[in-house]
Amino acid sequence: MHDARYESAVLDLLMSHRSIRAFRDEPVPAGALREILRAAQQASTSSNMQAYSVIRVTDRNLRSELAAVAGQQQYVVTCPEFLVWCADMERLRIAAGLEPSDMSCNAEAFTIAAIDAALAAQNAAVAAESLGFGICYIGAIRNDIAKTAALLGLPPRVAPLFGMCIGRPDQAPLMRPRLPVEAVLHENRYDASAYADAVADYDNAHAAYLKERSGGRQSAGWSEQMRERLTRPPRRIGRFLKEQGFELTD
Amino acid sequence: MHDARYESAVLDLLMSHRSIRAFRDEPVPAGALREILRAAQQASTSSNMQAYSVIRVTDRNLRSELAAVAGQQQYVVTCPEFLVWCADMERLRIAAGLEPSDMSCNAEAFTIAAIDAALAAQNAAVAAESLGFGICYIGAIRNDIAKTAALLGLPPRVAPLFGMCIGRPDQAPLMRPRLPVEAVLHENRYDASAYADAVADYDNAHAAYLKERSGGRQSAGWSEQMRERLTRPPRRIGRFLKEQGFELTD
Repeated sequence: MHDARYESAVLDLLMSHRSIRAFRDEPVPAGALREILRAAQQASTSSNMQAYSVIRVTDRNLRSELAAVAGQQQYVVTCPEFLVWCADMERLRIAAGLEPSDMSCNAEAFTIAAIDAALAAQNAAVAAESLGFGICYIGAIRNDIAKTAALLGLPPRVAPLFGMCIGRPDQAPLMRPRLPVEAVLHENRYDASAYADAVADYDNAHAAYLKERSGGRQSAGWSEQMRERLTRPPRRIGRFLKEQGFELTD
Repeated sequence: MHDARYESAVLDLLMSHRSIRAFRDEPVPAGALREILRAAQQASTSSNMQAYSVIRVTDRNLRSELAAVAGQQQYVVTCPEFLVWCADMERLRIAAGLEPSDMSCNAEAFTIAAIDAALAAQNAAVAAESLGFGICYIGAIRNDIAKTAALLGLPPRVAPLFGMCIGRPDQAPLMRPRLPVEAVLHENRYDASAYADAVADYDNAHAAYLKERSGGRQSAGWSEQMRERLTRPPRRIGRFLKEQGFELTD
């Protein structure tokens, strides 16, 4: 399993991730897409349930409608490959030969399916980047999650989680710094006492990053951006999930 | 970003993943753990919210209590490192200086946080495997999610999602086959018409795998295992999530 050549290559690759939003006009070869999906499938999955589906969107009109949901992000239309990753309890229901009333589709089931989808998608992202492609996750397909689900013909017990653009990068954006490890890692018990200092340090690093990226026009700290974002009207997906058969109060 | 040496090394690594449940009695060096966590942090995150926390459990008594929640999986106690990955909206609230009533902690927020945590965790898994460690996700900490949260002192708006064992492998388990790509991938619209054939093929492959792994004692197909699992009483985490401040109906 282990091989010395992995060490630096894999860590370098993971550490050099940045989201790509401009792509060269070059298709992703079918063989590469298949390798990306096979790598996705090899990720861990809860009790081997593999509770996710991937919708590959090749239809340009459909891409445009999804881009409209996603706040007119045009790379949703123009990227060489666009995949929508979905939580999927329906394939399991069909495979097991069960009626909807015979199985539970509660908060645990949604959590399993969302995590399964995300683990697989991140393997896909890493595989794609290892092949020289760039990727960008598109959470904004949840701006109108019911519309996205209708566009993709999703049956009950399937919910769209996020899109993913894949293609050859046509940009080399700056790396966005992350929180200090100390702000994310706790030992034995959750401890918020390191947050004030860690966030202050990060605000400075983030402001410097934004200033460089924007040519001096922006310089917000992270906590300022988060305050702005958290006080905006949030996306609402709870009603859709319930209508789709996920009983999240259970 | 791209380097030819990545291609085969990274794909080989991703394709050779299997969960490890027996570990050599050797610590994970502090520097390696830090690299694993830094790689985790570099994963994509929704609007840079980084809405997750990691609790590193070093206390043996705490490990034993978590193992008891997780159906007495003894490798939770004995593995060199045990991390609990949590959905975390509380650090954002603190950083943004908001009162709980000033922000939404709805189904969208939970989904963002669960996906952020899973993307980071999968990068950690890949990084760990690239360094020659083995990992195993432990979803069973959700068997009694309220107990797990209490043991780790999690405040409101933080929910434990899964554990992760890390250490040098002391076993070389068989690779578990996955569903055919055709059963997971759809084009433009969700289409269940390929399921019957794909699941029948997979049932055969899965039965062969189980037979080899068990020395002939087991040979269940996947759909049979899924039927058994889906008709068992499920884990229930909905009430805990609500009490923890996640309003999943919204």
